[in-house]
Amino acid sequence: MTAPALLQLFVESQAALEATAAPLSVEDFVVQAMEDASPVKWHLAHVAWFFETFVLAAASTGYQAFDPRYRFLFNSYYEAVGDRHPRPDRGLLSRPTVEEVRRYRRHVGEAMVRLLEGPALPPAPAFAVELGVNHAEQHQELIATDVKVVLARNPLRPVYLPRPARAPAVPVELAWVSQEGGLLEVGHAGDAFAFDNERPRHRTFLEPFQIANRLITNAEYLEFMEAGGYEQPTLWLSDGWAARQRLGWEAPMYWERAEGGGWEVASLHGSGKVEPLEPVCHVSFYEADAYARWKGVRLPLEQEWEAAVARQGPPRAGRWSPHPEPLAGSPAAGEIAQAFGAAWQWTQSPYVPYPGFRSFDGAFGEYNGKFMSNQLVLRGSSCVTPPRHARVTYRNFFRPDARWQFTGIRLARDAR
Amino acid sequence: MTAPALLQLFVESQAALEATAAPLSVEDFVVQAMEDASPVKWHLAHVAWFFETFVLAAASTGYQAFDPRYRFLFNSYYEAVGDRHPRPDRGLLSRPTVEEVRRYRRHVGEAMVRLLEGPALPPAPAFAVELGVNHAEQHQELIATDVKVVLARNPLRPVYLPRPARAPAVPVELAWVSQEGGLLEVGHAGDAFAFDNERPRHRTFLEPFQIANRLITNAEYLEFMEAGGYEQPTLWLSDGWAARQRLGWEAPMYWERAEGGGWEVASLHGSGKVEPLEPVCHVSFYEADAYARWKGVRLPLEQEWEAAVARQGPPRAGRWSPHPEPLAGSPAAGEIAQAFGAAWQWTQSPYVPYPGFRSFDGAFGEYNGKFMSNQLVLRGSSCVTPPRHARVTYRNFFRPDARWQFTGIRLARDAR
Amino acid sequence: MTAPALLQLFVESQAALEATAAPLSVEDFVVQAMEDASPVKWHLAHVAWFFETFVLAAASTGYQAFDPRYRFLFNSYYEAVGDRHPRPDRGLLSRPTVEEVRRYRRHVGEAMVRLLEGPALPPAPAFAVELGVNHAEQHQELIATDVKVVLARNPLRPVYLPRPARAPAVPVELAWVSQEGGLLEVGHAGDAFAFDNERPRHRTFLEPFQIANRLITNAEYLEFMEAGGYEQPTLWLSDGWAARQRLGWEAPMYWERAEGGGWEVASLHGSGKVEPLEPVCHVSFYEADAYARWKGVRLPLEQEWEAAVARQGPPRAGRWSPHPEPLAGSPAAGEIAQAFGAAWQWTQSPYVPYPGFRSFDGAFGEYNGKFMSNQLVLRGSSCVTPPRHARVTYRNFFRPDARWQFTGIRLARDAR
Amino acid sequence: MTAPALLQLFVESQAALEATAAPLSVEDFVVQAMEDASPVKWHLAHVAWFFETFVLAAASTGYQAFDPRYRFLFNSYYEAVGDRHPRPDRGLLSRPTVEEVRRYRRHVGEAMVRLLEGPALPPAPAFAVELGVNHAEQHQELIATDVKVVLARNPLRPVYLPRPARAPAVPVELAWVSQEGGLLEVGHAGDAFAFDNERPRHRTFLEPFQIANRLITNAEYLEFMEAGGYEQPTLWLSDGWAARQRLGWEAPMYWERAEGGGWEVASLHGSGKVEPLEPVCHVSFYEADAYARWKGVRLPLEQEWEAAVARQGPPRAGRWSPHPEPLAGSPAAGEIAQAFGAAWQWTQSPYVPYPGFRSFDGAFGEYNGKFMSNQLVLRGSSCVTPPRHARVTYRNFFRPDARWQFTGIRLARDAR
Repeated sequence: MTAPALLQLFVESQAALEATAAPLSVEDFVVQAMEDASPVKWHLAHVAWFFETFVLAAASTGYQAFDPRYRFLFNSYYEAVGDRHPRPDRGLLSRPTVEEVRRYRRHVGEAMVRLLEGPALPPAPAFAVELGVNHAEQHQELIATDVKVVLARNPLRPVYLPRPARAPAVPVELAWVSQEGGLLEVGHAGDAFAFDNERPRHRTFLEPFQIANRLITNAEYLEFMEAGGYEQPTLWLSDGWAARQRLGWEAPMYWERAEGGGWEVASLHGSGKVEPLEPVCHVSFYEADAYARWKGVRLPLEQEWEAAVARQGPPRAGRWSPHPEPLAGSPAAGEIAQAFGAAWQWTQSPYVPYPGFRSFDGAFGEYNGKFMSNQLVLRGSSCVTPPRHARVTYRNFFRPDARWQFTGIRLARDAR
Repeated sequence: MTAPALLQLFVESQAALEATAAPLSVEDFVVQAMEDASPVKWHLAHVAWFFETFVLAAASTGYQAFDPRYRFLFNSYYEAVGDRHPRPDRGLLSRPTVEEVRRYRRHVGEAMVRLLEGPALPPAPAFAVELGVNHAEQHQELIATDVKVVLARNPLRPVYLPRPARAPAVPVELAWVSQEGGLLEVGHAGDAFAFDNERPRHRTFLEPFQIANRLITNAEYLEFMEAGGYEQPTLWLSDGWAARQRLGWEAPMYWERAEGGGWEVASLHGSGKVEPLEPVCHVSFYEADAYARWKGVRLPLEQEWEAAVARQGPPRAGRWSPHPEPLAGSPAAGEIAQAFGAAWQWTQSPYVPYPGFRSFDGAFGEYNGKFMSNQLVLRGSSCVTPPRHARVTYRNFFRPDARWQFTGIRLARDAR
Repeated sequence: MTAPALLQLFVESQAALEATAAPLSVEDFVVQAMEDASPVKWHLAHVAWFFETFVLAAASTGYQAFDPRYRFLFNSYYEAVGDRHPRPDRGLLSRPTVEEVRRYRRHVGEAMVRLLEGPALPPAPAFAVELGVNHAEQHQELIATDVKVVLARNPLRPVYLPRPARAPAVPVELAWVSQEGGLLEVGHAGDAFAFDNERPRHRTFLEPFQIANRLITNAEYLEFMEAGGYEQPTLWLSDGWAARQRLGWEAPMYWERAEGGGWEVASLHGSGKVEPLEPVCHVSFYEADAYARWKGVRLPLEQEWEAAVARQGPPRAGRWSPHPEPLAGSPAAGEIAQAFGAAWQWTQSPYVPYPGFRSFDGAFGEYNGKFMSNQLVLRGSSCVTPPRHARVTYRNFFRPDARWQFTGIRLARDAR
Repeated sequence: MTAPALLQLFVESQAALEATAAPLSVEDFVVQAMEDASPVKWHLAHVAWFFETFVLAAASTGYQAFDPRYRFLFNSYYEAVGDRHPRPDRGLLSRPTVEEVRRYRRHVGEAMVRLLEGPALPPAPAFAVELGVNHAEQHQELIATDVKVVLARNPLRPVYLPRPARAPAVPVELAWVSQEGGLLEVGHAGDAFAFDNERPRHRTFLEPFQIANRLITNAEYLEFMEAGGYEQPTLWLSDGWAARQRLGWEAPMYWERAEGGGWEVASLHGSGKVEPLEPVCHVSFYEADAYARWKGVRLPLEQEWEAAVARQGPPRAGRWSPHPEPLAGSPAAGEIAQAFGAAWQWTQSPYVPYPGFRSFDGAFGEYNGKFMSNQLVLRGSSCVTPPRHARVTYRNFFRPDARWQFTGIRLARDAR
């Protein structure tokens, strides 16, 4: 990537990050609603920390750290960088204040701009910048998902953004798109940026299969609920049933019983009714899996998903819009719709290394590889994923009981 | 109490409450550092809630609630008032914002002033106002103790107020003040305000005893530590030793090992050295009890403390000063110094009802009586207690492992 | 105590201990049903350990330990004796087998008999023997209470002893026995054996009061339940309500809903109906306290209980009978019935040292004193207390949420 | 399978099961040392329950249940069969006694023999018998692993069987056996018994790889420990490091520091020194994975393991011998030794369904399929696996932090 391109990428990603946080009050920046989520303030500071630690401090540019204690405070999980503030305690930090975090971000941002306006960077730091931008995009998404927990747990139900007007959705029949399978290649190839976990491109053998043309809707999921899906243990994986019991699940996260019957849902637009044609969202892998079993089908393998979607070409570009909730889909005939931009799609594939996997060098080796246990791969992207960040080979991963991300259901089945 | 007196009391207490929070940033108002502590924002809103619920809504004045949902949100523990937001989740509430809480407080405050400027209140509401002021004073103290936890757990060690200059303290020998005991009266009598748990005044029999002329100092407590006090189980109550093991205590709360040996202490003035002549503070009952056992003496009964201190007359008035850490004492001969204004003093008396105890009527009956198990009485007052709030008959109470209040040690022993 | 008397005491107490365990199968000796309870095997071994450690090993008689590792394995809580096997793990020890424990007990018992048949012991070891016998009697009671948990948690509902035939009970009105109070003496005096916590005899001042002539019956407690006692938080201490919520209490321990409505109770006789006139048992302090509050009265102070019961003279002797469940009472006019032999009676008095308390010397100092926090005093004795063990000045103590002991309710109230 | 063959299979498997428990005392049958393990008594009863529920009660033979309550008590996890006694409470059941369990087993065994001596069974019950025998073999192994926890947690270190004399082991260099990979078939085919999770046989694509000729030895693992393997987080998966920290791992399970330095190990032979040439055992997946990473290689995929071992032919038959600890290996040139009979071998493959997986019908569908999340596949068999039970296609599965099974390490690497 050329130096001006890198500079533009950096500047744009930082602006998008700030824009995501813009509708919030100072108090919203502080709270950590659960251990897996982080305060908005922390996300913002951590993104700057990443550039400071891996670009500015690594380059011999005479960069002066804004506050040397931040190295400890805003390290997420890099053992190679040293000790860090405990993750569950991030919400205990009233300081630095939001204003101080902004000063920190300006300090880092200005140094980054100076660096990127200078002579072209050697490959290693240039890569670190590009990785940092992708890292920032991930935290941009997390700001939306994490603050959603904060706002939705609040009995006052604060609104992040008002629900925009939209044309009424049109129902679309669920249809199966057939795929031939065979000895195929999956994974990322070429020089463009991708995470280490997407490489190497490699051969895999798939039996013929079919994949659904759109995501499962709220109305369809409600049928499962009304058919007693949450009360039949034999529909569930054993760990899934244990989670359902332990956590008292009886609907997707954010759904709550409305007075007078039925369901409402808390969203970034405040509380509202459950829209039947919009994709069901905030379900765990266990719920997605139980739903599929109830339908007599299954979730796709990640390789199936990739092979099928890759044939449609790369995700269409777009700008991150003020619609931070997934919209109903409208697939053309034969199209696999909602692959990107609505909700992440649980696959049945555990998150494991590809054959021949080699992690990034140095501290970046901790970015992805060390999480390759007890997680499932999700494919596609969600309504709060920065559009530039979506990729056919992208492997997102979460634990099977995670529900606070925008995670939905796409079905698959063996060819008949 | 006359109507103008009540009005003045209300206005002054609210100003003092706001002053306590004044040095903090907005972010400091949000965090709940542990389940026993509450966010500053919550304290401020809850004090208004108390007046709104028990004075304004109870009076038929056409008062309009600021937000009816606050009845749920800022109820502390009044079952008679209804459900409430779970205590451990107070730190998850980014909303209402600090500014909204301030508007809420102004709304309530203005209605209170209108009420108190009007005709004299009947006894019941007048009592509710006076109770509300005393309640506000308790939360004024809690703001200081609770935000101390927030700031001290922060690796950046923010300063609430800079440490003021003070004259060097002069060492004073620990001396024993003898008391005759006998069949005495303790407890509150008369019409002046007191909590229900201080009444009725009643007879109790005390053997002759002696009580220390001042609180135990940091230097004295350090001797206990250096003598292995934290490593000898036979010095401790069984539950105390279990707490020490489970919680890893090896010094008072807020003490931490300094680089190069010795101890530092985190305070509302930031980090600093341990001042040898200042009273040891932030010790649990278990530590106070073990210290006393190590010295071959004991903690006082609450009746002993009251009988001895009452003979010195009521606490001297004073203003709450910007010295929110306890100062060294300088008792005159025969005087029991530091009874008030330094640190609460653990007694060996469990918090139980006095003979003939009758709790306040109605919802106020939940104020004190229902906590009469598993807690110990502390006497006196601390450096962050509003001076008007201190009283010879006052019974503070905390669990034996609580350390985040300003709690210190005064010794007693049987007469020889 | 003379040497032959000591020998007889030892032999009889050991026989009674064995008799308590006799109806059990080997498997029943092994299980630890909850952390507070211990396996029967452990109790039997620990009683021998006590004599071995504090009598045989302390005397210079050339005693050879049966197995030196038992010093660690069967130490309960004596820090002065050294480390010990963790209490919650007692049920993990399949070895030593029951037969090995019996050999251990014979080994110790024979050495004890040899010692006690010899020349009269000096005061210290003689005291240790007498303490050991009292200690054995305490564990005899615990075997019954602890195995009751084991059997009652078993869905097969095994029977310890069949329910004996008894004459039908006759209802007796609850009546109040008046007491004058005043400056009285309580506590143990004289040379006869008593625990350190019962001493010294000392003066205390009591207001006039009244005490119930018998224990509260199952029928009376059922009225409390049917009146919604378990659903009204304002009847409960705050910690009591929290315990009730956390532990899901809705009836005394061992009660369970019968098919077709009503309640059954699991007992050492297996499952059966709730006998209306028998004393309610296996209630916590919190439940006893809530019941009293619902009745508009209170629990007695331990001093009130002692003063009132002492006037009736010492407990009547009796043999421990095969009726290990409490029987209905039948007080004569003016009598305080069921003071002993039915169920321990919760007082409102926290377990604290008497004025001038001095614990036993040496390791025996850990016997009682170190537990003087967070517990309540119970007075009297229960249906499974060895009759010789009961005493007017006896202070039993348990945590306020403990329910597995035979604990019942006797009411008191202020004089009118 | 012919009727006489089925009968012989049943009888032999029951005898082997009893023989496994024979060296134990009654007390050893009762204890549940941790939630994942079960009491020996429970295993024995549950095996009978399986035949009673799925063969005898399902057949219309007029079978009378031994005790209808056992249906609840000894159900492991079959939701289709109904409620069951909670797994963590299995160690609380002193009843039925061991003798009663034996009577239960005789009752069931005699009914089974009568059934199997009769006319040939239709396919469904015949399958249920064969499944029941395989099920019994699994529990035979679990008896050994579960009682090992009981005995090894006991400070007395009881011996299950004395360590037999064996010839000194000879060191064998670790060597790599090359495999070509390609589009291969794995999984079970044909009519012989196999679990549903081993089917269907299907195609998979493997890159060329190499697999180790033997398991990693204690001596080799000790090098990892001495090189600080347990102190370097970057060698570990993130969840693995968290487990290591939370559980305090610093060596394989059952290793403990010897007095005077070095390590000892608790085994079914009692305590003893760590034998350098025997395979390291009782390591978790996380430890196996970290060891492999430290060596610069990896664990095999389950498909790699199967493809490589299948070429050597089926496991050699043998009798379960009184050597319940793994022995040193002695591979011939080019041989993959210790595939069976020493220790299960962690693969890097999560336990997921094979393409086209169809679970057993009815309640047997819960046997394997519902556990297909959060577990890893282990291949081979261990020293306590009944030899008849081992199979090249066998898929054992445990959670990544499980250590109480006989689990060891076989390495693999990409072809060079």
